[in-house]
Amino acid sequence: MKFTKRQEEIVKIVKAGQPVTSEALAEKLGVTRAALRADLAILTMTGTLDARPKVGYVYLGKKLDSDILANLSKIRVGEIMSKPVTVNDATTVYDAIVYLFLNDVGTLFVENDGILVGAVSRKDFLKIAIGGTDIHKVPIGVIMTRMPNIVYGFPEDSAYTLAKKIIEHEIDSIPIVEKVNDSDDEKVNLKIVGKISKTNITKLFVKLGENN
Amino acid sequence: MKFTKRQEEIVKIVKAGQPVTSEALAEKLGVTRAALRADLAILTMTGTLDARPKVGYVYLGKKLDSDILANLSKIRVGEIMSKPVTVNDATTVYDAIVYLFLNDVGTLFVENDGILVGAVSRKDFLKIAIGGTDIHKVPIGVIMTRMPNIVYGFPEDSAYTLAKKIIEHEIDSIPIVEKVNDSDDEKVNLKIVGKISKTNITKLFVKLGENN
Repeated sequence: MKFTKRQEEIVKIVKAGQPVTSEALAEKLGVTRAALRADLAILTMTGTLDARPKVGYVYLGKKLDSDILANLSKIRVGEIMSKPVTVNDATTVYDAIVYLFLNDVGTLFVENDGILVGAVSRKDFLKIAIGGTDIHKVPIGVIMTRMPNIVYGFPEDSAYTLAKKIIEHEIDSIPIVEKVNDSDDEKVNLKIVGKISKTNITKLFVKLGENN
Repeated sequence: MKFTKRQEEIVKIVKAGQPVTSEALAEKLGVTRAALRADLAILTMTGTLDARPKVGYVYLGKKLDSDILANLSKIRVGEIMSKPVTVNDATTVYDAIVYLFLNDVGTLFVENDGILVGAVSRKDFLKIAIGGTDIHKVPIGVIMTRMPNIVYGFPEDSAYTLAKKIIEHEIDSIPIVEKVNDSDDEKVNLKIVGKISKTNITKLFVKLGENN
C-alpha cells in the first residue's frame, strides 16, 4: 500500500511540529476535519502516527502492512447477515408496528408468496403514525417503499460493498435476496434470504478489534 | 498476532478437505455459523483462507500482520463523532418528532441549560405515537430515558470501545460529553459535545476499505 499525497502531507506536517491537533491539520490543509477522518484513521492504524488524547498527533514511524484492510472486501455478506423479519402486504400498519416491536428490528420486509415486494422502516411508521391515518385500517402495502425502489444485495456480495450502499442511500438495512424464476412467465423474482444492517457492520467492526 | 485454538482448527479442517463451506465447518466444530463469523473474518482478512462465493473456503496460506487491527482501538471517537441534535425537555413530543425528521436523525438528546438530561429514540417516539397519548400536549421530559440511565462516552474514548457499548446495550447512538462543574455545588454535570452512532461506525468501516 502506498499512502496518498494528502496522507504524505499530513505526515510531513506532524513531523515538523508535533504534537499537531486535527483542527490544526485541517486548517493547514484548507479542508474540514471531517475530510481528514479517513486519512487520520489509516495513518493511526498503520502505526505511522499516534493519536494522543487531548494532545494531538505525533509521529510514530511504523508502517504496518495494510493489505489486511484490502481484504475487507473479501468478507461475504452471506457470512454475516441476519434473519430477515417479513410480513405479508395485507397486514395492517398497526399489526406491523406491533410485529416490529416484538421482533425488535428497525425494518420490516414485505413479501407476497415469499417474493420481496416492499420494505418499511421505523421512520416510515413514525411518519404515518403522527399523520392522522387510521393505522388499524390501512394495510402496509399502501405505505411501504415498493420494488423496484428497494436497494438489495446478494449473499456473495462483500460486506464492504453493502456497507457502502447503506451509507450512499442513507438506509438502515438492506435485504439479501436470491433470484427465482417465475414458472408462468420469464420474469425473475427475488426471494428474501437475509438482511444486513448497520448493526451487522458495527458488530463486525467490534469482532475485528476483539481478536487482538 | 497468534491465531486462537479454534482458528487453528478451522485452518486444519479447510486444509484437509477444501473447499469447505461455513455450514460444514460449523457442523464439524459443533457450533453455530454465527459463532464462526469473527474467526472466518479474521482468517479471510489475514489472507490465510480465501472465501470463494458459492463454493466455500480454501487455504491460501498468507499470514498478514494483524497489528493493524489492534490499532483499531487507537481511533478516537472525538475524530469521527457527529454533531448532536438536542431539544429542551419542555418541547412537546409532537414538536420533537418534527424536529427529528427535519434533522434526519434517529435520536434526540435532551438538554436543560446545556446539560444532558435525557435521550429519546425513534423507537421511543413510535411507541408513544401508537399508544393513544396526546403527543401535542405531553412534553418530551415525560417520555425520555433519563440520566443516569443513559450510556455516554468521552471524546478521548476509542471508536472501538463505543462501538462495543452500542452493541452490548442494543442502542443506536451514544452522546459524547465533557464534564463541567456546577458552580453552586460540587456536582459534576455533563455537557453534550457530540454523538456517535452505528452510522459513524459503518462510515469508518467503508473508509478503511476505500484506501486500498
